Formats: sequence, structure tokens, C-alpha cells
Amino acid sequence: GVLGSGDFARSLAIRLVCSGFKVVVGSRNPKRKASLFPAAAEVTFQAEAVKKADVIFVAIFREHYSTLCDLADVLAGKILVDVSNNTEINHHKESNAEYLASLFPACTVVKGFNVVSAWTLQSGARDGNKQVLICSNKQEAKRTVAEIAQVMGFTPVDMGCMSSACEIENIPLRLLPAWKIPIFLALGLFLCFFTYNLIRQVIHPYIREQKNKLYKIPIEVVNTTLPCVSYVMLSLVYLPGVLAACSQLYYGTKYRRFPDWLDQWLQHRKQIGLLSFFCAALHAVYSLCLPMRRSHRYLLIETAVKQAVEKKMTIWVEEEVWRMEIYISVGIIALGLLSLLAITSLPSIANSLNWREFSFIQ
Amino acid sequence: GVLGSGDFARSLAIRLVCSGFKVVVGSRNPKRKASLFPAAAEVTFQAEAVKKADVIFVAIFREHYSTLCDLADVLAGKILVDVSNNTEINHHKESNAEYLASLFPACTVVKGFNVVSAWTLQSGARDGNKQVLICSNKQEAKRTVAEIAQVMGFTPVDMGCMSSACEIENIPLRLLPAWKIPIFLALGLFLCFFTYNLIRQVIHPYIREQKNKLYKIPIEVVNTTLPCVSYVMLSLVYLPGVLAACSQLYYGTKYRRFPDWLDQWLQHRKQIGLLSFFCAALHAVYSLCLPMRRSHRYLLIETAVKQAVEKKMTIWVEEEVWRMEIYISVGIIALGLLSLLAITSLPSIANSLNWREFSFIQ
Amino acid sequence: GVLGSGDFARSLAIRLVCSGFKVVVGSRNPKRKASLFPAAAEVTFQAEAVKKADVIFVAIFREHYSTLCDLADVLAGKILVDVSNNTEINHHKESNAEYLASLFPACTVVKGFNVVSAWTLQSGARDGNKQVLICSNKQEAKRTVAEIAQVMGFTPVDMGCMSSACEIENIPLRLLPAWKIPIFLALGLFLCFFTYNLIRQVIHPYIREQKNKLYKIPIEVVNTTLPCVSYVMLSLVYLPGVLAACSQLYYGTKYRRFPDWLDQWLQHRKQIGLLSFFCAALHAVYSLCLPMRRSHRYLLIETAVKQAVEKKMTIWVEEEVWRMEIYISVGIIALGLLSLLAITSLPSIANSLNWREFSFIQ
Repeated sequence: GVLGSGDFARSLAIRLVCSGFKVVVGSRNPKRKASLFPAAAEVTFQAEAVKKADVIFVAIFREHYSTLCDLADVLAGKILVDVSNNTEINHHKESNAEYLASLFPACTVVKGFNVVSAWTLQSGARDGNKQVLICSNKQEAKRTVAEIAQVMGFTPVDMGCMSSACEIENIPLRLLPAWKIPIFLALGLFLCFFTYNLIRQVIHPYIREQKNKLYKIPIEVVNTTLPCVSYVMLSLVYLPGVLAACSQLYYGTKYRRFPDWLDQWLQHRKQIGLLSFFCAALHAVYSLCLPMRRSHRYLLIETAVKQAVEKKMTIWVEEEVWRMEIYISVGIIALGLLSLLAITSLPSIANSLNWREFSFIQ
Repeated sequence: GVLGSGDFARSLAIRLVCSGFKVVVGSRNPKRKASLFPAAAEVTFQAEAVKKADVIFVAIFREHYSTLCDLADVLAGKILVDVSNNTEINHHKESNAEYLASLFPACTVVKGFNVVSAWTLQSGARDGNKQVLICSNKQEAKRTVAEIAQVMGFTPVDMGCMSSACEIENIPLRLLPAWKIPIFLALGLFLCFFTYNLIRQVIHPYIREQKNKLYKIPIEVVNTTLPCVSYVMLSLVYLPGVLAACSQLYYGTKYRRFPDWLDQWLQHRKQIGLLSFFCAALHAVYSLCLPMRRSHRYLLIETAVKQAVEKKMTIWVEEEVWRMEIYISVGIIALGLLSLLAITSLPSIANSLNWREFSFIQ
Repeated sequence: GVLGSGDFARSLAIRLVCSGFKVVVGSRNPKRKASLFPAAAEVTFQAEAVKKADVIFVAIFREHYSTLCDLADVLAGKILVDVSNNTEINHHKESNAEYLASLFPACTVVKGFNVVSAWTLQSGARDGNKQVLICSNKQEAKRTVAEIAQVMGFTPVDMGCMSSACEIENIPLRLLPAWKIPIFLALGLFLCFFTYNLIRQVIHPYIREQKNKLYKIPIEVVNTTLPCVSYVMLSLVYLPGVLAACSQLYYGTKYRRFPDWLDQWLQHRKQIGLLSFFCAALHAVYSLCLPMRRSHRYLLIETAVKQAVEKKMTIWVEEEVWRMEIYISVGIIALGLLSLLAITSLPSIANSLNWREFSFIQ
């Protein structure tokens, strides 16, 4: 059974019908709404729909839950699936599912399906996340809903008892929360270092020697900026650990909570580290592109021509040669190690490592 | 208990014995077959084997299921594990497991272990997929079989009730079905663009100016072909979304099913996108290799010598320099963005993103 | 309830309190220990604590399990969670959890939480592995503990019945066991080939012609060494399969166990293959860096100057050009194929492939 006639209710009904279920839709105005649903779904009055169904998807807004109170008698003993979402994180004191359960104590409420969109429901779980998070206090009801999700082509994930409902309702509102601060940090650092390098490599020679080096902006200036950002970010990964250790030494205990800013910082280390790796990888690609540039070619030919005209046969500078060989060699090794760190932060790899292995690699 | 004496039955018996289970094998000719099984497994007549075992693996072909009908009485109340596979997708109307369940209504049938090969069973789950998909209508029986799979070193995955059996039986027959069309598409596009570039860069200069540029075929021609393929593939990822939106606008509803070809196309977007990324990445590697080539070196030296002989000191062309700097710079950024898309299509990353985050990145 | 007052007990109590549970700690000296625990946790005598709690975490060493025997009466019917670890793999004959269960036959013992560290418990599961492996013979008790783990922010993983306890206890002691032999193998091969290349490219020219080529050590010698290591490792991936087939042909059966060394070798193929890929990828990066080096630039200019002085206009050698084009071209294709193999060895990708697809790609 599906209660409601909104976008989600319609997509849900379509998907259930396609998956071979018998669907009955409860609406307050079945005649007007019938055309919106697939022909195979029976559209009728709410009370009648509830009577015919064992599992009822409540696809109406939290604000209208109380309008169902008239149906309390028919609903008794049924499984109610709360598919609702909020518009803000922690909008209400108690989760929608817990509110629904408090209104209908004779029903078994299961939270689920809120993490899938109407579009995913309709078109089938093609790409992206196929998981449907489910929680409930009744094991049996949870299992029934999980099997419906399975047949619909989703991967049900048991999230435990009703107290997880709040967390499940917050998930669809999340937009990469852990990445916001690290990304702004990286952008800020990039801007600062970029300005410095721009002045140093382009503006300064122009003012002093009237040399036009503007062509350096898109690649060379960016390329000297990236490793600076990468280094600072990498140090920001390891600094909070040191600060935390100092704080523990200072207070003489490791059971005191860290101040909030340090706690936040410790929690963002993985993201900061991945951005540091991203900058390092970009720096490697930019550096590898240097010899491909037309300007590199011109400068090389100009030097050769100058040498030839002056009949100067050798220009070998041992120190310069060694410096570059060592730079490149150390750079490759550093990138290799960072890659290893980045790979172990993939969820499926991290899950196959135990704590000892993880800290060994880190 | 194991019924059957084929390759799979033997591997299953070996693995069960190695995992510490007591194994009894039922055969119609126990004396002749006993030598095929490990010494620790008891090989006896079918009826006797069935009596002694609680969980019975039915490792015989679907065609011979009916030969077990004599054993119906002894089998009553036991758990039958259907491990069979088909030779064609959707070969029979009902799945093998459902057919077995219809023959023995007094037994609990569990579908499982068909996705592992005899070789994996024998040697232990070393690499590749360690999952054993299990489905059944009885929760308790499913759990028993799941724990056996666990002890054998596999990861049992609950696939819900018996109606999933058909799906589970089709899995081992699959051979990257979603990749076939995209790969042929990419190969087709590659061939077309390669021919065009071959004519343009090698054949045309040969006919017009008798210049031998055959050395360009392995790298330069391929390198100009790859981005063309990549671009066309990338546009094919976003085009069907536009067509779908147009179709929805035209029919004035988003609940009308798309025509089949559009639906197919929408389903292959991920694979087309990954192939587009693969071509782009190959193009990047080819481009980076250009300055390593002997031909690049020769052309450079030849130009330098020519300039030196003519005492022409400067060859700097500002426009050429800028064009190349911008080409490379934009190329790196595009590749970085495509990499991000490719990484989010890894199953373990996609599962940690919610729908809002996934569509934000896409 | 938590029994014990060590590091783990304290972290566990803090985390439980933070997750909203009522915690009672049992200690033999509650007054002295109370200050160690968070204020919200009640610290009392062991017998009293046990009476008040339904689920009891036994956070004491295996050696002291027998000191709890006095509490046998109060413990009866409760769920005991064994969180202990060993100091050596397979230290005792039976696992700690099974030993605890044998001491208290009236209790339900659940193994769990040993794979998380005190630090992870305290600070919340931030990065790395969030899984808590759980096993028990009683389904209901396992579910209760799993839900506690869920609320604490971990991902409970059902590992089946008590016989898995031994395996779960060994996990935290593992330190990449499958990687040890392959890594030493790679290092050994690297050393051999490096010495050979060092003699050939640096020491030999120095002795014969007094030429100082020491600058070649960090990049060129390493770069010629890496593909040798990669090739030998790759051949070591495919060789044991051939040997296994030969052994099967020789003995005329595929049900005979392979000798131990071959079995070990077969099991390490994935790791050897990944190291081979790692060397190949490093070789690619080193090769791409070659034209960036100062020495490359100097040699190029020197050649150009020499040619210009001698007025030798052309230095094109068709054979050299072709050799290099084909080298690079084949190298890129080989790296592309190896990348594909490496990607399919990611756990989340491997789990989405069936056996037929996996062996097709391999």
C-alpha cells in the first residue's frame, strides 16, 4: 500500500508495480488522482487501501501525519514505512519516523527508502548509491521491508533500531560536509601562493627588466604554486596529531576531551591529506608537460644557436645536472608514497586492513 | 550431505572436509565413486546419505532432479541447497531452485554457491569475488547455509526470498553485458578517426610532396585519434539526458516510459563515460611521451642547426607559445575533472555518497 | 556493564556514555578507580555492576578470566562480550571467547570489538576500518551486540558462529602477511638488477674510458632496473599456474593437493602482480621525466652545436626513429592493460564481477 499522491508516491508505485508487487494506493480523492498512477495499481480511498495492504508506505509530509489519525483502527498491526525527508538537518526534535511511531503505537514503523530519489525509484538503481538504509525496533518488519527493497533492485542495509532514524533522515541533506573546510583551505592557500609566485616570476622581471614573461602564467606559475599548497596541506595533516599529543602531555591524561577546534581538525585530516595528494599529482602532471611546450622548444633552440655561433662546445654544469636528477628522483618517490596513502583511504581497501596495518602504512 | 559425484560435488566435498565439517556423499554407485572423494568423506547410497545429513547440497543437473523423487520421504524436513547453474540466461521458465522446491514441498530449498566455481571451492577463495549469494523463503535455513559459507571462507550475501533465485542463476552466465555496446562503439569510432588522421597526416603528404611520414603511425596518429574518440564518447554520455528531457517536455509528463533505445542508452552512460576517460588518459600518456621520441630529438637538432647556419638568433613566436600553454593547461584541468568522475564511479566510493552529492559531482 | 579498568575498559565506557547508553563499571576497587571513568558512568563492585547490566563487556586479560568465577551465579543468563586480544597468533589452543564460554556455560558469549583500538573507541571511528566483527552461537545476543556497535558508530559484521572467534582474535595481530614475501622478492630482484645496471652503465665506462657518468645513478640506472623487476615479477605471476597444470597432468588428477611451496606461491600471485604493476608504473613516470632533466638538455644542445659547427644538416636515422616509436607505443599499451588488471583487484570492483568475468579479464 502507498498513502499519498505526490512525486515520490507515484514513482514508488510505478517501481513496485514493475517489480511484480500488487499495489494499492490510498488517496483522499481517488477519482482525480487515478490517472497519475500506473494502470496496474489500484487507486482507492485511504481507509480501503490500508485494509487491503500489509505493508504501507507513508509518502506524505510530516505535517500531514496527524490527518491519518482517523485511520488508527485500520492501521493497527500493519507495517508503516516512513519514507519522509526533512528540509533541514535536525529540523525537528524527534525524527519523522519516531513521531509517526508515537502517533500510531499499535503499528510497527520502519524507516527506509528516504535516501533514494523519486528519479532513482522510477528508472531503477542504475548508477550511484544503490543502498536503502533501514531501521526499526521490530526485526521481523525490518526483514520484510528489506526483502521488498531487494526485489526492487536495491541493497538493503540494516541500520539497527529506531534511534538511527534521525541519522538516516539527515543523510540525504548532507553535501560533502567533511570536504567544505579542506577545499576552502586549499583554495585560500592556492590564491596566496599564486599571487606570490605571480609577483616573483612575472611582475617583478617586467618592472625591473621590462621582460614580457606573461606566457608563464598558465603553466609555470601554477606549477610552482601547487607543491607549496601540497606541502602546507601535508603538514596540516600531521600537525594536529602533534598538538593533541602535547595537549595530552600538558594535562597529564589521555581521557580529557580535546578542544573543539582541535577535534574538528583531527576529523578533517583524511580530506586534507587527499587534497594534498591531488595537488602533488597535478604538480607531477604539470611538470611532465613542461618539455612539451613551444616555449621550452624555442628557448632550447635559441641557446643552441647562441652556443654554435660562439663556437662554445660544452655547457655541462655538473652541479646543475645533479640538482635536477635528485629533485626529480625524490619527487617521484614522494609521489609514490602519497599514492599508497591515497589508495588505502579508498573505503573498500581500508575495510580490508586492520588497525595495525592501517597505522603502519600511515 | 552432498548428492552427486561430478566435478562440483567433489570440490564441494573436499572444501567441506577441509573446513572441518563431517561430510557424507550420496551416490548411485558408491563403490565405484568412493575413490574420487577425500578419505574423510563417507561415500554411501543416496538414501542412506540423506538420512545422515541435515543440510544436503544437490550437486546434480536440473534434468536429473526428478530421479530424486524416490527419496522424497527421507528428504522431508531437510534443507536442500540448490547449487546448479544454467547454460543459457533464462533458459527455463522457472529457476532451478524453484523447480526443486516444487518437486519437494516438504523440504526447505536454499539457492546458493552457484556463483563459485569448482576451482575456487577447491583452492579456497583466494582472489576475485568471495561472495556467495544466498536466497530462500525460510530465514532459519538461509542462516544455516550462510554460516556454512562463512566457515568455508566465503562471504555470504543475503539476496532475500526465493524469487531472487532466477537472478542468482543468471549471474554466472553474464560476461560484462553492460560493456559490450560501449566497447564496440569506442572501437568503431577509433577506426573511423584513425583512418581520417592516417590519410591526413601520412598518406596525403606522401602523395602531394612524396614525404615519408610513416613513422608517425604508431604514436602521432594514434595520439590525435584518441581525444576525438574521447570527445564523442563524452558527448554521448550527456546527449541521452537531453533527449530524455525533450521527450518529457514533448509528452508533457515524466511518467511516460522512454522508448527502448533511449532507455538502453541511458543505462550505458556510466560505461561510455569510463571509456571516454580511458581514451583521455591514454591521450595524456601519449602526449607526455612525445618529447621522448628520437624523431622529436632529430627535428629539434635539425632546426637548431639550420638556425645556427643562417645565424638567425631568435625564433620566438608569441602566438604559438600562448596557444600551446593554453592547450596543455586546459587539457590538464579537463583530465583532473574526468578523473574525479571516474573515481566516484568506483562502487565503494559511490556507496558512500548520497544522491545529492553524486549528482553534484556529476 | 563493563568489567575491568584498563585502557580499553575506560575508552569503551567513554564511548558508550557518549553514545547515550547507561554504563555501569565493575571494579575490585571502585573508589580508587572511579576517577578514571567519565562522571556519567557508575563505578561499583563487580557483583553489583553485573546485577545491574544485561550486556557485560569483559575487558580483562584472559589470564584473569578465572577470577570472575565467583560471579558465576549473578552472571547466569547475561550476555558476555569478549573483547580480548592475544599477543601472538594462535597463542592458545582455544580462542579466548571459547575459553570464557567454557567457564560460564550459563552465559551467552559474544566475540566482538577486539578489532577496534582503544584510540578508535575514544575518538570515534574517523578513518580506517569501521567494521566490528562479531560472532556468537546465539543469534539474538549477536543482534543485540550488533545494534550497540551500530549506535556507537561502527559497522557490525556478522562472522557466524563461535568457531570464527579464533580467526577474529588473530586479525588484529596480522601485519600484511600476504605482502611480506612478495616485497622481499621485489627488493631482492631490484638489488640484483640495480647492481648489474650500475656496473654496466656507470662503473664500466668509468674504468674503460675514464668517463664520469655518476649522474646517471638516481634516474637512469633506476629506470633501466624497474622494467626488469617488473618483467620477472609478471612472469612469476603466470609461472605457478603452468607448474600447477603440469603437476596435474603428471599425476593425472586435479584432486591431488599441490606441494606446499606451490600452494603458497599460487596464493601470493595477486600481490606479486600488484608489485609488478607498481614497478611498471614507476618506470613509466621515470621515463616521462627523462626529457625534463638538465643532462638531457645539455646533451641535446651539445649535439646541436657540434652539428652546426660541422655544418651537418641532417642526422635523421630512420631505424632509430622507428625503434623508439614502437618501444613507446608498446610500453603504453602494456601499461594500460596492467592498469586494467590492477583496477579489477580492488575489492569493491572484484566483488561486482562474477568468476567468468574475472577470469576473462585476467
